[in-house]
Amino acid sequence: MTTPHTSRVRAGVVGATGYGGLELVRLLAAHPAVELTYLAGSKDGGPDFTEWFPHLAGVIEAPLHAFDPAACAERCDAVFVALPSGASGQVAAELWERGRRVIDLSGDLRVPADLYRAWYKREPVDPAVQTAAVYGLPEWHRDRIAEATLVANPGCYATAILLGLLPLAVAGWLSPAHPVLVDAKSGVTGAGRTPTLNTHLGELYENFFPYKVGAHQHTPEIEQELGRHVEAKVLLTTQLLPVARGIYAVSYVTLDRAADVGQVYALYRETYKHAPFVRVHAPGRVPQMKHVRGSNFCDIGLFVDERTGVVQVFSVIDNLTKGAAGQAVQNFNLMHGLPETMGLAGGPMFP
Amino acid sequence: MTTPHTSRVRAGVVGATGYGGLELVRLLAAHPAVELTYLAGSKDGGPDFTEWFPHLAGVIEAPLHAFDPAACAERCDAVFVALPSGASGQVAAELWERGRRVIDLSGDLRVPADLYRAWYKREPVDPAVQTAAVYGLPEWHRDRIAEATLVANPGCYATAILLGLLPLAVAGWLSPAHPVLVDAKSGVTGAGRTPTLNTHLGELYENFFPYKVGAHQHTPEIEQELGRHVEAKVLLTTQLLPVARGIYAVSYVTLDRAADVGQVYALYRETYKHAPFVRVHAPGRVPQMKHVRGSNFCDIGLFVDERTGVVQVFSVIDNLTKGAAGQAVQNFNLMHGLPETMGLAGGPMFP
Amino acid sequence: MTTPHTSRVRAGVVGATGYGGLELVRLLAAHPAVELTYLAGSKDGGPDFTEWFPHLAGVIEAPLHAFDPAACAERCDAVFVALPSGASGQVAAELWERGRRVIDLSGDLRVPADLYRAWYKREPVDPAVQTAAVYGLPEWHRDRIAEATLVANPGCYATAILLGLLPLAVAGWLSPAHPVLVDAKSGVTGAGRTPTLNTHLGELYENFFPYKVGAHQHTPEIEQELGRHVEAKVLLTTQLLPVARGIYAVSYVTLDRAADVGQVYALYRETYKHAPFVRVHAPGRVPQMKHVRGSNFCDIGLFVDERTGVVQVFSVIDNLTKGAAGQAVQNFNLMHGLPETMGLAGGPMFP
Amino acid sequence: MTTPHTSRVRAGVVGATGYGGLELVRLLAAHPAVELTYLAGSKDGGPDFTEWFPHLAGVIEAPLHAFDPAACAERCDAVFVALPSGASGQVAAELWERGRRVIDLSGDLRVPADLYRAWYKREPVDPAVQTAAVYGLPEWHRDRIAEATLVANPGCYATAILLGLLPLAVAGWLSPAHPVLVDAKSGVTGAGRTPTLNTHLGELYENFFPYKVGAHQHTPEIEQELGRHVEAKVLLTTQLLPVARGIYAVSYVTLDRAADVGQVYALYRETYKHAPFVRVHAPGRVPQMKHVRGSNFCDIGLFVDERTGVVQVFSVIDNLTKGAAGQAVQNFNLMHGLPETMGLAGGPMFP
Repeated sequence: MTTPHTSRVRAGVVGATGYGGLELVRLLAAHPAVELTYLAGSKDGGPDFTEWFPHLAGVIEAPLHAFDPAACAERCDAVFVALPSGASGQVAAELWERGRRVIDLSGDLRVPADLYRAWYKREPVDPAVQTAAVYGLPEWHRDRIAEATLVANPGCYATAILLGLLPLAVAGWLSPAHPVLVDAKSGVTGAGRTPTLNTHLGELYENFFPYKVGAHQHTPEIEQELGRHVEAKVLLTTQLLPVARGIYAVSYVTLDRAADVGQVYALYRETYKHAPFVRVHAPGRVPQMKHVRGSNFCDIGLFVDERTGVVQVFSVIDNLTKGAAGQAVQNFNLMHGLPETMGLAGGPMFP
Repeated sequence: MTTPHTSRVRAGVVGATGYGGLELVRLLAAHPAVELTYLAGSKDGGPDFTEWFPHLAGVIEAPLHAFDPAACAERCDAVFVALPSGASGQVAAELWERGRRVIDLSGDLRVPADLYRAWYKREPVDPAVQTAAVYGLPEWHRDRIAEATLVANPGCYATAILLGLLPLAVAGWLSPAHPVLVDAKSGVTGAGRTPTLNTHLGELYENFFPYKVGAHQHTPEIEQELGRHVEAKVLLTTQLLPVARGIYAVSYVTLDRAADVGQVYALYRETYKHAPFVRVHAPGRVPQMKHVRGSNFCDIGLFVDERTGVVQVFSVIDNLTKGAAGQAVQNFNLMHGLPETMGLAGGPMFP
Repeated sequence: MTTPHTSRVRAGVVGATGYGGLELVRLLAAHPAVELTYLAGSKDGGPDFTEWFPHLAGVIEAPLHAFDPAACAERCDAVFVALPSGASGQVAAELWERGRRVIDLSGDLRVPADLYRAWYKREPVDPAVQTAAVYGLPEWHRDRIAEATLVANPGCYATAILLGLLPLAVAGWLSPAHPVLVDAKSGVTGAGRTPTLNTHLGELYENFFPYKVGAHQHTPEIEQELGRHVEAKVLLTTQLLPVARGIYAVSYVTLDRAADVGQVYALYRETYKHAPFVRVHAPGRVPQMKHVRGSNFCDIGLFVDERTGVVQVFSVIDNLTKGAAGQAVQNFNLMHGLPETMGLAGGPMFP
Repeated sequence: MTTPHTSRVRAGVVGATGYGGLELVRLLAAHPAVELTYLAGSKDGGPDFTEWFPHLAGVIEAPLHAFDPAACAERCDAVFVALPSGASGQVAAELWERGRRVIDLSGDLRVPADLYRAWYKREPVDPAVQTAAVYGLPEWHRDRIAEATLVANPGCYATAILLGLLPLAVAGWLSPAHPVLVDAKSGVTGAGRTPTLNTHLGELYENFFPYKVGAHQHTPEIEQELGRHVEAKVLLTTQLLPVARGIYAVSYVTLDRAADVGQVYALYRETYKHAPFVRVHAPGRVPQMKHVRGSNFCDIGLFVDERTGVVQVFSVIDNLTKGAAGQAVQNFNLMHGLPETMGLAGGPMFP
């Protein structure tokens, strides 16, 4: 049901049966410059993708393949790889080495081998591949992404938090003397589609709890990106919300200078004036998680507490869109010289 | 952020601040043949619609008007009126009399004066206006809608239930000797945006209950449309689900003949083979409410119970999309000679 | 933390780690006539039950045993067996044969071998054991339960539906000429604690769908109990609500005589005047699912639709309490000559 | 349905129709030393409380009074006042001056006049009355509460946060040099029963957002209680969870000394060894919000982040129980020389 377009890019999704993959399919099916030519899951496939995912009947007509690198590379100009970390990077590397443009949505290509080992407790992919991958945060690496053939799509938490903190880091206001405390909350789709006790509605409904306290694997990519500007330590607390989608991050920052909320707001407005997906709220207004649902927006709210001097940055995304598939499509657009917002202009679904 | 289009229709939404209105704005903002030229709410407005609805910042730029019929008619070729029943029909009539194409989303123009009085407990609009309005169920009145200048958009429950029952009625299988029992469940947005105790999350969360038992005002429009083919009595039980969106209707039908599920399925497949938004599930498969969320689809599942002979028709829609705004856009497309699916092709948001 | 009591009954729970088992532990820990002496799960145990279930720390102090029939029988006067159907009945039989009073919460002992095979698709337990088991619906079999040593605790759906329909059946008003249509909805804990895709919050949240259409295994026990009074066919439609607890059943009945709602109400009031856990709502009032949460109540609402003559019986329980553990404790009380409401008098948790 | 008890205390609830009041009624109805003799709401009453609150039918039999101080004082030995802040303190004062034992659940009597004016933006009650009121946090003021006749029941956020922070403050580990950052989340019942847009399920479902940022009125009572031991500034961020009940507070603390998690854990274990409602989790384990639901427990988890040295204190309560009604009953028990846990021993309702 997509609009015709001259010379569409033939695109594939590997890992199409996970939540990130399904969101990619939803977005790519409506993308005017994409022809969706290859869908593969982690297991055996069949002739009709919608047999497993009836919500997409009438939206796409495609088989679900068992992944085969050669077939994938033959049918696609560009491939989104959305497999679990530990499997995804290797597949991405293989397709990239076959000359395809690749966007990897996993954590496998975001940080160097030593950090990967330390935080993922697993052997990394070939360091040469990792080094070749551009960190795909478009608001901050637009030019490099435009020239990239391999992109490491940022983590969902990292996206919200970096968009919230980078303006302070770049401006030199973020003090290395104080750790940045980030209290972040995520909907359950961030935990993937495999059923577990933690994602069982009987357990999570009317519930709320942290997980991976002080040990979340998005920490190093946040510190790495901030580290281009300031040596900052981040304490990331990740918590599970009893909802399907959304990330709400509150970052507590002690500046190394006095600044009122007007100055902070001016900094963010200036920083993001050309970023179509970042919406900075006026002082005194807080973003709501549902205001970005299903969209590629990141909403940011800013407070400066007069009693303590602490700056609070509220940053909100849909973890499956700006935090995964939407941002991947944004990267795809940049890599192919297309308008950054193409296929991503739909408004959030509220309510 | 909409795509340019030659000679777009200037469209307005009156009642843009309710849930149906907000969904209209979301859909129309992305509609390639629409220029959104007028938004009015039920109360005073202001220069920036997104001041009240920040989720639409970056999606639309428009003032929120206090409704003025003359200004509205001047700025719009077509107007969607989504005010509460009791107010909406009068506004629709006024704009229609000024020569505009009008789609009224309320219950005010769907049934004749006597039924309106009996079920809505209120005085109807001018019967001449009501008679001029075409009942906007596109799958069944496509031709009349294409010629209409005034459309009464069906009720959300009525849409799901009629799409589920009309194939049986038209085929002559629906027996007038037995009432059709419809057990229907709706998300809370169907109850409108005005806060009440029933819609308070503290009350409705982890809850479920019926309301307006045997007295729901969508009953007469269901019986009216079925009545074009068979004299059927419908007992409609409406119930509130603790979710935001979606309608799940289960219709229990005693046929006047023997029919196995294969025959019933064949009937529905044939009936809806040219209906782009109706998806009929193969026997043995049930639709899920979330599989249509945010989309204009109506999913239908069919069972025939061998022990009792009862046919169960499961029909599912998003109450704000196919049950309100999406169907209104579908009607708008037909009224303007546009492709029926224009602006409505986005896949459901799952999860 | 329970109150001391002369000569408390030593009670055990086998299957204490499932949802029904956990609710049993919650209720028995506060029961003044019970000493909780044995807890076993389906897998290996450990010295501290609250290691797995920290919500019970400070409430109970007990090990979690790997089930051993001899040890269980030695330590307990009475045993609740809450294992999955297919395993539970055999364990219940074994403990009963060792001379213990046993209440089995599974479906294994509720219906004769032929019905069991047909609906459970599995071999039944020894028919002699099944025959010895009393169907534990206290409102209808109080005397037999009081003398029983083996009780088959009713299914959760069956409890709500039978309490809703039996007054009509006993009064002879329920016509065998028409099937009884039951549209029933359940919270997800009814599906057990094992994680599946259907119970994943990412899938079920904002969702609603039927399952086991026309094939739910509670059907035969409903027909069996109604069948003591009238030959009735029941079409049971079971559906999953995106909440943790609660069952809402709507039964549609065509009477074999005219009756207004006042007469129906009078019948129910009279029938349940000595039933401490059944609350019959006055005509015009509907029960809410959350009004019984965490309690042993069954709330009933009654409507007679004048246009179709159909009677609607709304019956509501907490599936884990009156639908499982609470009713089991009620049976336990009767079997031990204790007041029926002992340990069950706590009010529902609303909100 | 309560157990008889020699010389029960005649107790009343003013503000019985709010969420705190309803929870009081639920708890007091099952309290063995209480006779519930007076219930008043904020509006006109009627002969049957359960007409408005059918979930309590069969649990209590009582009229709902329009509040009258003389009648209330005559019928009650002790009164719980659970009206909104701004109204509650005055009523509490009046009843106390008539010689009744009074527990006020509002914020009116917790802080001195100047702080009250600054944070509540309203005129305080008579300072003499405020001064007479004992701050009812039993774990820390047990002796003073036992002698009190007027108790100011702590705020829900304050309860969770103070139980989480006081051990550090008393031990002298909490440094005045760093603000304590508290990221707290609450279920919607904390916002009261009056319907608003923020509490509308259509808005809050699948949503999450902060409110009263840096301005929450529980801040001064937290600083006041900490201030008995250390001059600490608290930045409290309060956020709305899309659930009915529960508070999850994460307090970020920079100690003025090095301490590993074992030392912190030992401090908390020692501090709360005689507190029946405080459960301290072993290092490495996080509490879950649902593990305290419906109970009077406060669960505490402790982490020390090695990379930043920051201590994280996770503290969790049910806002209506330990955060309001349960704590009020705990205070009532102490004031009347009853066992602290009387009527509060029920286990949490999980799931």
